[in-house]
Amino acid sequence: MLLLIPGPVQTRPETRAALAQDIAPWDNDFRPTYASIRDRVRAIAGGQEGVHATLPLQGCGHFIMEAAIRTFIPAGGKLLIPQNGAYADRAVRLATECGRQVVALPGPDTRPVTGEEIDAALAADPAITHVAVVHHETGSGMVNDPEVIGPVVRARGRRLILDSVSAFGALPVDLSAHPEIDVVLFTSGKCLEGLPGIGFAVARIDSVTAAAGNAGSWSFDLLDVYEHAVRAGWGSFRFTPPVQALAAFGVALDLYAAEGGQPARLARYRENARILYDGVRGLGLTPYLEPRHQGPVIVTVHQPADPRFALQPFVDALKARGVLISNFYNTKVPTFRIGCVGAITPEQMRGAVAAIGGALDDLGVSRREAA
Amino acid sequence: MLLLIPGPVQTRPETRAALAQDIAPWDNDFRPTYASIRDRVRAIAGGQEGVHATLPLQGCGHFIMEAAIRTFIPAGGKLLIPQNGAYADRAVRLATECGRQVVALPGPDTRPVTGEEIDAALAADPAITHVAVVHHETGSGMVNDPEVIGPVVRARGRRLILDSVSAFGALPVDLSAHPEIDVVLFTSGKCLEGLPGIGFAVARIDSVTAAAGNAGSWSFDLLDVYEHAVRAGWGSFRFTPPVQALAAFGVALDLYAAEGGQPARLARYRENARILYDGVRGLGLTPYLEPRHQGPVIVTVHQPADPRFALQPFVDALKARGVLISNFYNTKVPTFRIGCVGAITPEQMRGAVAAIGGALDDLGVSRREAA
Ligand SMILES: Cc1ncc(COP(=O)(O)O)c(C=O)c1O
Ligand SMILES: Cc1ncc(COP(=O)(O)O)c(C=O)c1O
Repeated sequence: MLLLIPGPVQTRPETRAALAQDIAPWDNDFRPTYASIRDRVRAIAGGQEGVHATLPLQGCGHFIMEAAIRTFIPAGGKLLIPQNGAYADRAVRLATECGRQVVALPGPDTRPVTGEEIDAALAADPAITHVAVVHHETGSGMVNDPEVIGPVVRARGRRLILDSVSAFGALPVDLSAHPEIDVVLFTSGKCLEGLPGIGFAVARIDSVTAAAGNAGSWSFDLLDVYEHAVRAGWGSFRFTPPVQALAAFGVALDLYAAEGGQPARLARYRENARILYDGVRGLGLTPYLEPRHQGPVIVTVHQPADPRFALQPFVDALKARGVLISNFYNTKVPTFRIGCVGAITPEQMRGAVAAIGGALDDLGVSRREAA
Repeated sequence: MLLLIPGPVQTRPETRAALAQDIAPWDNDFRPTYASIRDRVRAIAGGQEGVHATLPLQGCGHFIMEAAIRTFIPAGGKLLIPQNGAYADRAVRLATECGRQVVALPGPDTRPVTGEEIDAALAADPAITHVAVVHHETGSGMVNDPEVIGPVVRARGRRLILDSVSAFGALPVDLSAHPEIDVVLFTSGKCLEGLPGIGFAVARIDSVTAAAGNAGSWSFDLLDVYEHAVRAGWGSFRFTPPVQALAAFGVALDLYAAEGGQPARLARYRENARILYDGVRGLGLTPYLEPRHQGPVIVTVHQPADPRFALQPFVDALKARGVLISNFYNTKVPTFRIGCVGAITPEQMRGAVAAIGGALDDLGVSRREAA
């Protein structure tokens, strides 16, 4: 079965195999594995030792996002969120429910937020201290570019929180070139091709240590995660970690480096996305995004208008052909989405395009009417 | 290597093997596995369909504990915590940092809190709505008995939150006989012998649905976890789950049932603990607890007074003999602790006692001086 979903992604057998062991998390033999994960992840983020720290948290992307919002923005503090997609909606809800004031900047999920839009919103409200941006919008496949947003935020003297959950490891992030970024967030089971269970923050140490008293939650206080690491050593995890997922993540990082790191990973995903984008067009389907806004992580496709099409039967037909895609969608209009990430080769992607065509045939969906 | 720690525990090979697969969490083929985990876990807690619901959360025990405190007690609300051990200290910190008022009832970690102590504390302060109790105190090995505490809490018209993280599955919990219990909490990697990564709450549905607006956190709102399950189906997890740990947990529950469920699991652990307790005494060491307060989960042992004893070298010597124990302790005086839980047989426990004797010899610790 080929998993074509934006996480938890298809992993390599070596990565999965590393899960199947009992490990005592604080065991001295395990500490180096864990400490090296911290260092390697910081390096992928373009972070610097002594300036940036890798702060992991058990759980999932929502948790690390809430932890970052709580840690960097005090209760009652104000943040701007460009609300141009389903995961931005989630960031708004996370921030609102934990008592932060959200200024939402609504926009369509078919194009990135612009620097001008961010600039105008910040100019209009000096009380906004932070901007929280979804890097790759997993609801549509579109990319908000930190290279565009960052300089605007910096020029206005505000701080940036980057939700790179579905992009990190593929789309570049360079913290050293972006001092306005307090933190970049991601999880173990997406573009770094590990298994789910761990959220990561790579954060500026000066911002973290300035955040005392903000979080209003011991569990979600990234300052406490930092202080624990300083006290107990960088090979030690606060609270019981999903230690098998950590071991596997170490292997996933080995494979990442062996592949050629971020540029190689991005090139493979881009090629996957291109094959898919062109492939579904070749089948008479209509991608949700224009080519210039199409990111390398998922391709979202309009559902065919043909009444013989329905999502779950289509997903089932595709599964019978060995390809598993999401059985839900996050856009306002009916779509389906296909992941381009994970341990998937362009060759397999070509096979997936053929399977999509076959599945449409199985349902009797006319490819002409499809668009 | 034999893991003798109170979690993540030694697992059975079948359980670990179930980790090594890629799974799409929302896949229709996975839903039954997950729904059945919910049902089986509720049954182990003595819960009833329609009255109690299994509400899982990504992460660890601290997270599910904070989620329960936030969900059942509003901000500013007041709870009593019998503070008789290291994990009770943690409960106090979790509740305090999320803005709940804690009335701590201090006590030694060498004996359970009594019904009279709880009763007096509740009588003295009618503003206390909840009592949060650590079932098995993993810092010492002592058990606070819900059969003793529950009736007192019920008689005073208050509610009980039971942190059974290190006991659940071994020590009995019968929610149907204890309507005063709002929620019992545990994790996947302890006495049910799964892998770490998931926290579980088995909660009264009436208490959960009465908790609207309490949590002040989307991530930690158990009402939202409940509503998601009602909406999306009990085979669906809110946010990306550690799906491999879930699959393995299903296998762990199969093995639990095959062993004979809670009575059989408890009997094996009790036998392990007895062998260990008597065994270390036979080696001239002094257990931390009196026999009548010794629970079946860990045996805590005073460190020998002999200056040739030091914890990490002892742990290393024991590891060289194939037994891994914790390299830290949670009591005020120096101790070491040995887990009796996990996929460990009494036979292996006898081997562990011999290894402890051998490790003391390796360090040149005189066994006479030891006590
Ligand atoms: C951009 C983005 N942010 C946040 C999340 C939330 O992550 P999780 O599902 O692990 O909670 C996701 C999940 O897909 C995501 O794609
Ligand atoms: C009684 C008790 N409560 C809470 C916890 C916290 O669990 P975790 O380490 O998974 O956060 C533990 C962990 O051992 C525990 O034993």
